[in-house]
Amino acid sequence: MASSEISPLAPKAIAVMPPVAGVRLATAAPAMKYQDRDDIFLGLLAPGTTVAGVFTQSKTASPPVDWCRKALGNGRARCVLVNAGNANAFTGSLGVRAVEEIAAALGQLVDAGPQEIYQASTGVIGETLPHEMIVEILAETVARAGEADWSQAAHAIMTTDTYPKMSSRTAVIDGIDVVINGIAKGSGMIAPDMATLLGFIFTDAPVASDILQNLLASAVDKSFNAITVDSDTSTSDMVLAFATGQAKGASVIKPFDAALDERLRSFREALEGVCLDLAHQVVRDGEGAQKFISISIQGAESDKAARVIGLSIANSPLVKTAIAGEDANWGRIVMAVGKSGEAADRDRLGIWIGGVRVAYLGAIDPAYKEQQLTDHMKGREIDIVVDVGVGPGKAQVWTCDLTHGYISINADYRS
Amino acid sequence: MASSEISPLAPKAIAVMPPVAGVRLATAAPAMKYQDRDDIFLGLLAPGTTVAGVFTQSKTASPPVDWCRKALGNGRARCVLVNAGNANAFTGSLGVRAVEEIAAALGQLVDAGPQEIYQASTGVIGETLPHEMIVEILAETVARAGEADWSQAAHAIMTTDTYPKMSSRTAVIDGIDVVINGIAKGSGMIAPDMATLLGFIFTDAPVASDILQNLLASAVDKSFNAITVDSDTSTSDMVLAFATGQAKGASVIKPFDAALDERLRSFREALEGVCLDLAHQVVRDGEGAQKFISISIQGAESDKAARVIGLSIANSPLVKTAIAGEDANWGRIVMAVGKSGEAADRDRLGIWIGGVRVAYLGAIDPAYKEQQLTDHMKGREIDIVVDVGVGPGKAQVWTCDLTHGYISINADYRS
Repeated sequence: MASSEISPLAPKAIAVMPPVAGVRLATAAPAMKYQDRDDIFLGLLAPGTTVAGVFTQSKTASPPVDWCRKALGNGRARCVLVNAGNANAFTGSLGVRAVEEIAAALGQLVDAGPQEIYQASTGVIGETLPHEMIVEILAETVARAGEADWSQAAHAIMTTDTYPKMSSRTAVIDGIDVVINGIAKGSGMIAPDMATLLGFIFTDAPVASDILQNLLASAVDKSFNAITVDSDTSTSDMVLAFATGQAKGASVIKPFDAALDERLRSFREALEGVCLDLAHQVVRDGEGAQKFISISIQGAESDKAARVIGLSIANSPLVKTAIAGEDANWGRIVMAVGKSGEAADRDRLGIWIGGVRVAYLGAIDPAYKEQQLTDHMKGREIDIVVDVGVGPGKAQVWTCDLTHGYISINADYRS
Repeated sequence: MASSEISPLAPKAIAVMPPVAGVRLATAAPAMKYQDRDDIFLGLLAPGTTVAGVFTQSKTASPPVDWCRKALGNGRARCVLVNAGNANAFTGSLGVRAVEEIAAALGQLVDAGPQEIYQASTGVIGETLPHEMIVEILAETVARAGEADWSQAAHAIMTTDTYPKMSSRTAVIDGIDVVINGIAKGSGMIAPDMATLLGFIFTDAPVASDILQNLLASAVDKSFNAITVDSDTSTSDMVLAFATGQAKGASVIKPFDAALDERLRSFREALEGVCLDLAHQVVRDGEGAQKFISISIQGAESDKAARVIGLSIANSPLVKTAIAGEDANWGRIVMAVGKSGEAADRDRLGIWIGGVRVAYLGAIDPAYKEQQLTDHMKGREIDIVVDVGVGPGKAQVWTCDLTHGYISINADYRS
């Protein structure tokens, strides 16, 4: 089911992923779905590792999401286990039991409580997870922890992704170098029969779980929460962050007062960089995507209103098909601003595409000629700026175009 | 730009449209856009005609929408004028002046105040309306009022519609027969460069404007507001209703106390029938549509919540592409319920497709076999029922599938 061709928008270079002290990786193949490759990822974490997480807002969230959300109260993690091919979503009480039994078995193996075992599942909704198959290979997989590299890990969590998604940044805290590595999967929130965005961030910085939670929530808000492929929201979305505190010399770092602590500035920026990089990689792997679209909104009532307007444009099938057709159809952008429900002054609206002002003060810019945009619209990267003319609010969101490829992937086969 | 092939979902029979006393129709061709056909529709109304209207919620609504919304306060109408090919939307002060000048010129011709002249425009957004061309042919068009039939009127307002949309019902009030005729246009809310749903209802019943407004709002809520093709909302949507009071013998009908007056029951039902018939015809002409999808939600917290859940399913690209692929992919329905934001009990959720229970109590129905649905999914009419298991709320919405045809119409050409 995985697509064979790599997205034309894939990053040109593969990220260099240094080790993260206190994190050991393994992958395994219980042959649940992807028989030709590993579809289990295990991250083993040093004792004392803190954890933070953000989860789907879905009202039909999967048992693994419920489990992790609850486990977060504990603030500590020893393990993260991910399977690809089966989302363990809408699986009734069997799905809940599967998560519990995996947590119990894995906890015993790594000498941790079940509430320190984090789990994520991605794949088909509604099929019972054959969790015995997973439990069976746990001991052997734990024994191999440390043998897999980050690329293998990123591969193991893929479903219909056309390339593995990795990102790494370094930061300095109190003079100590720390690493932040992240892997993610998602082919635009959605995929044939599958619907999951998963992200896992690992750092060897020593950061308490409450502060890590604040930092993660803020970084996700500007990255994973600012992308869309088709407006569909998964039952299984989650982004988890783990901080082992095992960086060389990290023992000299004193606890932080708050997420906005000045000493965390470098770490905060690096974390945001990893999240944004991964989020963009997900959009660039959007199903059928041929163009990567950046949308900046300014002049909105608030930053929140700007986000809503940006997503209204980014989710509009009319805007996305126009861009697929290389048509600078700004009338459809006006429509999408109007339908967002947020305040906009029709007579002060301005629109720029590829840096060219096409509409201004509520009407077409008299100086604008469609030929000015021909080259920009033919390119892979489309830039849209909209000023809605009512206030100081601004936001940026990213999406991809809507093409025949999307329909082919999602309609032209029987699951 | 109009599609040459008629939608496979078009009604098999053409509606029989009796005359409506007090309404005279004309069409004309100022050759603004559709050079091979009439693209102006004029409805001339007897003195004393009452009017009601509902309009787009867009924050970037067009000048004709603003004009009609304001005129409604007056409660009387003598004329409705519609042009196809140019939406007169996002056209700045020139667009406002166009509407004013047409109203003034037409008002003079029919001996009415400008606030009794209703106007609608549908077509390209952002192009200045060459209203002088319209003003020029008004006298000649008014002189021909009565020469056009309902089919010609329904044709004149089309843009990318593949067939004209008409509906008629009769009702009895106090023993007097009255007629309700309606015409509409819209190829699924949206079309290449165009984005408009317009509906015009004419009756010879005597109904005061405030009561007509209540009746229309209620009928539209259950029909035009319960359909979607692609979640995009026009800058120009409107549905207007006109009541001439000229039905034979209508003078014996006494004024009504309220919209819920028992004497109006037959009229209310007929009006709802016309609105629902037209709304379904719009969905059946959705761009690229191959299947007509009915979605019933029950067990929601409220009727409003049920509507939100229904539209979340109806607008989900994943659900719509699955149906295009004739795949009874109920996991995607679960996803769409979850993302709606409305309360749903994952563990009490039930889903029926084509009358077959596929999911029950939060998991797949053990008795369900995919083969049971093969014939239903291959058909033109798809029925989905979802019980979200939390309350008494229910709603019904309608949509169509999302196919390669949609992408072709909206992306595969340069406007």
